[in-house]
Amino acid sequence: MMISAIEEVTGPIAPPDEQAALRAVLRLNSLTKPPGSLGQLEALAVRLAGISKTEQPSYGTRTVVVMAADHGVCCEGVSAFPQEVTVQMAYNFLSGGAAVNVLARQAGASVQFVDIGIQAELEHPELINRKVRPGTDNMAAGPAMSREEALEAVLVGVKVAQEAIKSGTEILITGEMGIGNTTASAAILCALGGLPPEAAVGRGTGINDERLLHKIEVVERALRVNAPNPADPVDVLSKVGGLEIAGLAGLILGAAAARVPVILDGFISGAAALVAKAIAPESTAYMIASHVSNEQGHKLMLECLGLEALLDLGLRLGEGTGGVLSLHLIEAVSRIMTEMATFESAGVSGAEGK
Amino acid sequence: MMISAIEEVTGPIAPPDEQAALRAVLRLNSLTKPPGSLGQLEALAVRLAGISKTEQPSYGTRTVVVMAADHGVCCEGVSAFPQEVTVQMAYNFLSGGAAVNVLARQAGASVQFVDIGIQAELEHPELINRKVRPGTDNMAAGPAMSREEALEAVLVGVKVAQEAIKSGTEILITGEMGIGNTTASAAILCALGGLPPEAAVGRGTGINDERLLHKIEVVERALRVNAPNPADPVDVLSKVGGLEIAGLAGLILGAAAARVPVILDGFISGAAALVAKAIAPESTAYMIASHVSNEQGHKLMLECLGLEALLDLGLRLGEGTGGVLSLHLIEAVSRIMTEMATFESAGVSGAEGK
Repeated sequence: MMISAIEEVTGPIAPPDEQAALRAVLRLNSLTKPPGSLGQLEALAVRLAGISKTEQPSYGTRTVVVMAADHGVCCEGVSAFPQEVTVQMAYNFLSGGAAVNVLARQAGASVQFVDIGIQAELEHPELINRKVRPGTDNMAAGPAMSREEALEAVLVGVKVAQEAIKSGTEILITGEMGIGNTTASAAILCALGGLPPEAAVGRGTGINDERLLHKIEVVERALRVNAPNPADPVDVLSKVGGLEIAGLAGLILGAAAARVPVILDGFISGAAALVAKAIAPESTAYMIASHVSNEQGHKLMLECLGLEALLDLGLRLGEGTGGVLSLHLIEAVSRIMTEMATFESAGVSGAEGK
Repeated sequence: MMISAIEEVTGPIAPPDEQAALRAVLRLNSLTKPPGSLGQLEALAVRLAGISKTEQPSYGTRTVVVMAADHGVCCEGVSAFPQEVTVQMAYNFLSGGAAVNVLARQAGASVQFVDIGIQAELEHPELINRKVRPGTDNMAAGPAMSREEALEAVLVGVKVAQEAIKSGTEILITGEMGIGNTTASAAILCALGGLPPEAAVGRGTGINDERLLHKIEVVERALRVNAPNPADPVDVLSKVGGLEIAGLAGLILGAAAARVPVILDGFISGAAALVAKAIAPESTAYMIASHVSNEQGHKLMLECLGLEALLDLGLRLGEGTGGVLSLHLIEAVSRIMTEMATFESAGVSGAEGK
């Protein structure tokens, strides 16, 4: 039943509008600048035109959705931070003091904080409580969660996207919090991207060489114990995934189905995007890769997704921080497409020969 | 006399404030994020603290100075665009329709347009007329200008910086316009960076392979005919430089002397920065490299300057476009340093071991 609920979401995902993309190319070439001289911003303009069916795309209402959950695998000692930091940081997000809150305010985006699987019970007027279960089980010893729970978490994400869009959101940004979630994301990259753990596992919040080797071994064990089926993304999610990763996969699918661009943050968001792509390959047309993070494996992840990142600032914080930073580039594209003079309007001569 | 006028400017350039930089490091490590997880933004925060003597640097009043001039070397056929585009684009800047105007509005920066050497006479209420001479001579046949003219153009830039700072500008961004100016900039990179023309010369506004080979040959000829002295940056400027490049070198020196950070745009701004560094090496502490452009040689130029770029978007437009885009990252740093919660204020546990 729930599988068919996901198919109901992914069914309407359509390819981008080629006519609007073509009009964007023509408009870019009419503006007072050498053709192609705005580099990646021009490529972004063409993609956004295809997504939003207009050569002058504009996204006034911006929402970053931070999905948070705990990870049973933390008991293996894979992180530099204790697991209770997930809860402590939850209140930090809710009171507006985390990095993503600060950068979202700068970019005119609102932050929605969704508890999709924190181990503790939280209380806060701003909290969106969509808890599927209080944290996952230790994936190094067995499945992180049941197939039903993974599906439910995906559908939570779909619904959060639908509600945000219904309330006026024109662009979505993925964010997350969950001590241990780079471990789960690396395991997903191995399972869906076919990478060995030593290529996929990175330092997360900042572990040393010794703990990195241990983390690689934990991911190897999780993959061996669970044998996730790469042809079945929900199987991968349930066995070696996380609740916030499942939720973000759903958020991405919900955005794509509604033709709303969805900006991917870093490594964990990328794992969610890999799951979304495995469920509905055409959803990648609606994904914007905001940045390539410092986390080992993220570059390979973006290659699996076929996406080129906008920023490369060595970020490795997650939360959606790289995502909201890239909003300034999206806004730049909107303004270039609407405010720049054309060769004709400004009376400027074009190239006379190359 | 004018040499001593430059020495009067460069004399007071002081090293960054190490105490403020240290306080910035301590503050960054107290904020609710894994240490170092904001990557290049953290390095930028430390640099800005040193420049501005505060760990919470903030730049409300932002000015991009677009210096424009013509280049005699255009008669050699080095550009895809005819020389009259410099004048046509001047009016486009003055009426707010160029890319840099659009992106400056987004970033809350004002644009000053300075005619420091356009071949034609312009009239516009917003024009800042500081014309030293109407365009340079063809550097492939002899010096681009006299030593006195080069010095005068540098001092124009110094004065523009001083006046802008006196009027409240807290951060300066370099911009430029001048058909043919990638050719002069490449010649400067060869002379001051010790590079061969084939490594320094790029496609500028977008020339084809055939014209690129010709452009390389023109730069070779300019260097052979003039034999600029790499130990004498004003000699290099006068023989193979440009008026806007000289002006921007002065702007950079004027900013550094006043402890005002100066954001460098692309290849032409980088050539000006090389000249500024050759005149006063300590000025590099005040330079921020906004982006690495698509122009061949810019990467090597940034290495010569010892600067790491913030953005890598394949831009090759100049004008100051990459410079104003990077203002959003500067603003992000300001907000991170003032608005983010600390581990203590938010009651979040630190790393328990790596």
